[in-house]
Amino acid sequence: MLPAESRAPMPHLAIDIGGSLIKLVYYSRNGDWLPEDNKIWSSKESLGVSNGEGNHPLSEGRLHFAKFETSKINDCIEFIRSKQLHVGGQHHEVPSKNKIIIKATGGGAFKFTDLFKEKLGIVLDKEDEMDCLVAGANFLLKAVQREAFFYMDGQKQFVQIDHKDLYPYLLVNIGSGVSMIKVDGDGKFERVSGTSVGGGTFWGLGRLLTKCQSFDELLELSHVGNNRVIDMLVGDIYGGTDYAKIGLSSTNIASSFGKAISVDKELEDYQPEDISRSLLRMISNNIGQIAYLNALRYGLKRIFFGGFFIRGHAYTMDTISVAVHYWSKGEAQAMFLRHEGFLGALGAFASYERHGFDDLTAHQLAQLCPRRESCSEGILICVHGRK
Amino acid sequence: MLPAESRAPMPHLAIDIGGSLIKLVYYSRNGDWLPEDNKIWSSKESLGVSNGEGNHPLSEGRLHFAKFETSKINDCIEFIRSKQLHVGGQHHEVPSKNKIIIKATGGGAFKFTDLFKEKLGIVLDKEDEMDCLVAGANFLLKAVQREAFFYMDGQKQFVQIDHKDLYPYLLVNIGSGVSMIKVDGDGKFERVSGTSVGGGTFWGLGRLLTKCQSFDELLELSHVGNNRVIDMLVGDIYGGTDYAKIGLSSTNIASSFGKAISVDKELEDYQPEDISRSLLRMISNNIGQIAYLNALRYGLKRIFFGGFFIRGHAYTMDTISVAVHYWSKGEAQAMFLRHEGFLGALGAFASYERHGFDDLTAHQLAQLCPRRESCSEGILICVHGRK
Repeated sequence: MLPAESRAPMPHLAIDIGGSLIKLVYYSRNGDWLPEDNKIWSSKESLGVSNGEGNHPLSEGRLHFAKFETSKINDCIEFIRSKQLHVGGQHHEVPSKNKIIIKATGGGAFKFTDLFKEKLGIVLDKEDEMDCLVAGANFLLKAVQREAFFYMDGQKQFVQIDHKDLYPYLLVNIGSGVSMIKVDGDGKFERVSGTSVGGGTFWGLGRLLTKCQSFDELLELSHVGNNRVIDMLVGDIYGGTDYAKIGLSSTNIASSFGKAISVDKELEDYQPEDISRSLLRMISNNIGQIAYLNALRYGLKRIFFGGFFIRGHAYTMDTISVAVHYWSKGEAQAMFLRHEGFLGALGAFASYERHGFDDLTAHQLAQLCPRRESCSEGILICVHGRK
Repeated sequence: MLPAESRAPMPHLAIDIGGSLIKLVYYSRNGDWLPEDNKIWSSKESLGVSNGEGNHPLSEGRLHFAKFETSKINDCIEFIRSKQLHVGGQHHEVPSKNKIIIKATGGGAFKFTDLFKEKLGIVLDKEDEMDCLVAGANFLLKAVQREAFFYMDGQKQFVQIDHKDLYPYLLVNIGSGVSMIKVDGDGKFERVSGTSVGGGTFWGLGRLLTKCQSFDELLELSHVGNNRVIDMLVGDIYGGTDYAKIGLSSTNIASSFGKAISVDKELEDYQPEDISRSLLRMISNNIGQIAYLNALRYGLKRIFFGGFFIRGHAYTMDTISVAVHYWSKGEAQAMFLRHEGFLGALGAFASYERHGFDDLTAHQLAQLCPRRESCSEGILICVHGRK
């Protein structure tokens, strides 16, 4: 660590640069910035908390979340520059002798090191991706009430996690690809599995198969699609009947995209919404299955799904929930996180030692923010620290 | 069972009608038919074997294998009619009072009951699909030498299975969809898992994404393709480096089809061979992973992969082998079956009680056919029974 006198202004920004998306978490003190929903946060209570070393903890304020496509990294850099996030929001020049160091994670932290140096003059301080995912998930699960939920019948059912009974759990982070991590405690984890069939597969195949211009457009389409047009169901093979002996109903998918083998139809004969729905079911179902098998393998009762693939999307969560229920014969249930897409970025943010962004701060926050459940999802977490 | 005098000529045919393909197994006595490779079979030895009841066992002869696309079921029916397979190859009219009963399995045995009755006047006697798959696999593994093999470095390495140590094993049948069956003995099994991401997915998605006219054409293409053009590799995210800490090399696929999210390229900018290879890797790898997790779950040492998806295709077997090796960290190895696509049809054939097609017959065959290993793959098995 650099000596205090040569330090640049405290950065209030961390970056997670994945294969498809860049996720930012940045902090503003109350008063620095007046968001449109600042009415939400009315409590003036705060807590003195320090991590005992740097003694420069966050003051009462907010965490903001933003995302950019990795292919548009220059937009992200411009955003950081315009808000001066890399220098703690201070709109004055940083003396050139002071090195600005920003915590960064994800593969892009390695890939784009030079770009950040060149364009913003900052050094990306690389934090391990899995470390950050786990730190982010642990922070959310311990600090933020109404963060974790089951998704059933179109409804979120929030769960209060007993902190003493949190570990072990399986964290399934669905980004471009999927990582499955057995988490045993703070900083104690193992990446036990994963699959290459993830969000990048959904969007990559979806782009090739439809004319959708964005991931969100493709996801939206799936709402109104009918996968039965493209998937081969058990009933399609069995002439409309179940294969009851082995517990397959006529509506179970026997073969994803199996009806597309028909020589009578070409790609343009299928509706993009039906394609989107088949893709989403195939991928969500597959991830749910592999996640359950890994939870079973390691005797993990809880499976939390995160990552930007989900995006609070009802049908995605529903399919994952149904998959886990189906494959576990009702013995396991999928849980989701409201700040699903920002685990890595939050973990990188938490890794600034000077922030005092530790368990205690976070925990106290949860007790002190009476209206935190109203915070806009994916936008803000109200944080408390020393003023 | 009908009394002997009212029986129709013994059918020497069984059918497995799947979602994509119809598989036939039929029998000819030596002399009935002179195949181009009849020089292979020179032994005149034969064994008296009976199943003890019907006493109409197969005489020395051959089993033939044929397949048709389910969408071209009329070609299949015409084939059966032209060879008179439903009446044991006898080219004379069957008295109408005699019911011709043909063993059939797969969902299409239910779906196409009326069609077979109408076009050929035969009754499909439905056998359970899983029963047949297991019976077929057990027959092959016990009766046919050089049936099971590992696939390594482009080479088949045949394995002699000790019959006393065959069970339990995991049978992974990759048809349009995938069934995973824990086999504990003759007729003793449980379908423990499966996935909808199977052969129908490969061919369905492949048809939509390329202009290939057949499954085989698509498979062939994959030989010369380069999946790195479309898949997002770890190195693509990490700027060319490994993510060594968690054991991911830069060439591991992070996200199947993840590079196709690029806005710069449309479907027509990708080569069909690259698409085919990405698809094949995605699906083979996924099946290998889920299979291994299930083998682990039930403590099964051996995993046999069958079903028409494989078709003896080197790259498919290689990917499945690598997947099982990778996910099991070298603890498990995939095995394949030469007559992979005909498990269900063979099992249905074996279910004719009058054929004497039981363990003993099959076992003795294996001991008596000195050159059986030269039989053309997927074409013939030489069988022995009572003359």
